Formats: sequence, structure tokens, C-alpha cells
Amino acid sequence: MSSHSSRLAQQMAFIIEADKLKNIFRQSYISDRSRRENDAEHSWHLSLMAITLYEHANDPNLDLLKILRMVILHDIVEIDAGDTYIYDEAHKQDQAEREQKAADRLFGLLPPDQATEFRSAWDEFEAGASPEARFAKAVDRLHPMLLNYLAGGITWSKHGVVASQVRAINHKIGDGSDTLWEYAQGLIEKAIASGTLPDA
Amino acid sequence: MSSHSSRLAQQMAFIIEADKLKNIFRQSYISDRSRRENDAEHSWHLSLMAITLYEHANDPNLDLLKILRMVILHDIVEIDAGDTYIYDEAHKQDQAEREQKAADRLFGLLPPDQATEFRSAWDEFEAGASPEARFAKAVDRLHPMLLNYLAGGITWSKHGVVASQVRAINHKIGDGSDTLWEYAQGLIEKAIASGTLPDA
Repeated sequence: MSSHSSRLAQQMAFIIEADKLKNIFRQSYISDRSRRENDAEHSWHLSLMAITLYEHANDPNLDLLKILRMVILHDIVEIDAGDTYIYDEAHKQDQAEREQKAADRLFGLLPPDQATEFRSAWDEFEAGASPEARFAKAVDRLHPMLLNYLAGGITWSKHGVVASQVRAINHKIGDGSDTLWEYAQGLIEKAIASGTLPDA
Repeated sequence: MSSHSSRLAQQMAFIIEADKLKNIFRQSYISDRSRRENDAEHSWHLSLMAITLYEHANDPNLDLLKILRMVILHDIVEIDAGDTYIYDEAHKQDQAEREQKAADRLFGLLPPDQATEFRSAWDEFEAGASPEARFAKAVDRLHPMLLNYLAGGITWSKHGVVASQVRAINHKIGDGSDTLWEYAQGLIEKAIASGTLPDA
């Protein structure tokens, strides 16, 4: 095999392995409540949010391509590590370790230069280490809140989540976008008013 | 409502409507053959292919952000127009008209400047009117072929598709990337050799 085709073979192995993300289901339901959402479609919806909403980021000079790269890659590790529900404190304890191991294996399928590039985008996202990462994390938090609001609070009620928890977890949306955090607070108020989120 | 919040409300209306793309199912199965793939997860997988493979485009000076915008938006119209199987000649006849109407409605949910911007990205993709559009279309063709190959040719056999049809439809991959068309031809040869695609 030539080095050209061996490079392509490594890239295709990564792309093929990534198909498994379509079988990693999240706690969130899609808005019509018919079923839970998987990580692949969640990642697409985030990328749509990013291209539509990045003008609302706190930092007006964001690199949209950098945001998209993070958003496209951000959940890949869950192929090995599984989805961790954001309100599940026990399961969150070893989450970082499980995800680091997954990142080693999955990005390791790629040619070395791309493995480094994709891993560093993922590390930057995880650490919230740039305005782009903070904006990507903001839409990653807003998205399940929005779906859950549209689905009548189905995940909140299933897990007994109350408004103060939603605020404590999601106020970090403001690190990426004050405007989106203001919007999210409006959703919380409407969910309380309609009785789908306990005001506790 | 201030003009700021009314702009955001229009953007969110578009994002919320787009959730329906998760219920538009394609002919392709995911690679483990457990179920058909939906348009949202397909669009994510294409964006992953784009960031991984764009170095193989015929034109070495592509704008990756432009490709990603097209790939993220390319199937949105199917919320109204439905998925049209690429080998279904009868259904393809009124496809363009159905999709134009859908584009009017769906992109029309956005603030006017974004409606124009997103619509023009979609038009450019549809027309294959730039190197970026031709590369995006190349991965959009390669992706179902790859899944189908991995799934043992399940969609080909269900619809009685033979190798000459696969070649006739997919040779356009070469308009965006000769390297990916070469790879795709390798898949066709392997599918024929393993008996999953009739050599006719």
C-alpha cells in the first residue's frame, strides 16, 4: 500500500468507527417526545446552532471554523465512555478518566498529525480554554435544555431535577454568551410557570 | 420585544423547526444494520468526513468553513420535501420543485440576512457551483455507499441496484475528489467480489 492510500485508510477507519456515535443515546428526548436523542444528531444540531447563533457570543471575534471542529468532535469519546448525564454526580466522578482513555484510542486511529490536531481541539473544548470553546460549551448546555423545555420537561421530571439545579448547571452558558444565558433563563421561567419544572 | 430579542426569536424558531430532521429517515442503514439512518446524523457524519478528508479534494485551496456550512444545511429542505432515494428516477422528477418550496419556507424562518446567506449556501451546494460544493457533494455520495458497503449491501439488494448503476450515479464523486472516487471504486470492486453487489 502506498503511503497515500495508507493515510486514507487510517482516516476511513476513524470515520467508520465514528458511525457508532449514532448508537449512543442521551437522556434528552427529541422535541416531539417520540424517542431519546443520539450523540450524532445532537452534534449536528449543535453545529446548526453554532452557525446560526455565533453572533451572540460574548467575544465578537470568534473563529467559527474552530467552533465547528470542536462541536463535530466533542462527543466522539462517548463511543467508548458512554453518555454521562449532567446531573449524575456519581457517574461524573470517573468521567474524565474514561473519556481520556477513549480519546487516546479513537483519535489514535487517525494519521499522527490529524490525531494531534483533533485531540487538541477536543482538549481545548473540554477545558473551556478559549472563547471558541466557551461558546461551543454554551450551545452544548443550551441544546438539551431547549429540547427538554420543548418536550414538556420530560427528562427533568424523570430524574427529579428542580429549577435551582438547572440554574446551577447552566449558568455557565453565560461564560460563552450572556445573550444565550438570558434566553435560557427565560425558558426556565416559562417551564416553572407552566408547571413542568419545580421551583425549588 | 426589542429588535435584538426578535432576531434571536427568529433564529431559535429555525433551530427548533430543524429538530424535525431527526425524523426524516434515509434509505441507508447505519453500519451495524440495526436501523435506517436519519438526515440529522447523516449530516453530522458528512461534517466529520469533511474535516477529516478535505485534503483529498481536487482543488487544494478549499474553504473548509464554506464546505461545513453547506454540509450542515444541505438536507434541511427534506423536513418538508422528504428524502428522495438517489436511484428513484420517478420520485426525482418533482424533487427540485418540492425542495425549492421547502427552502423558501424553512430558510424564511430566519432573519432576512441569514435567510439569504443560508439559502445561497444551499443553492450553491445544489448547483455544484464551486469547488467547495463539488467536494461537499462528493462526500454526500460517498457516505451512503460506504454505509451500504459496511452493511453488506442491504439497500442495494432491497432495491435491486447493480454495479453499473452505482458507478453511473457515483462517478461524480470524481468532480470533487479523484482520490475519493478511486476509493469508492475500490468499495464497488470489493462488494462485487463478496457477492453483495451484482456485477451487471
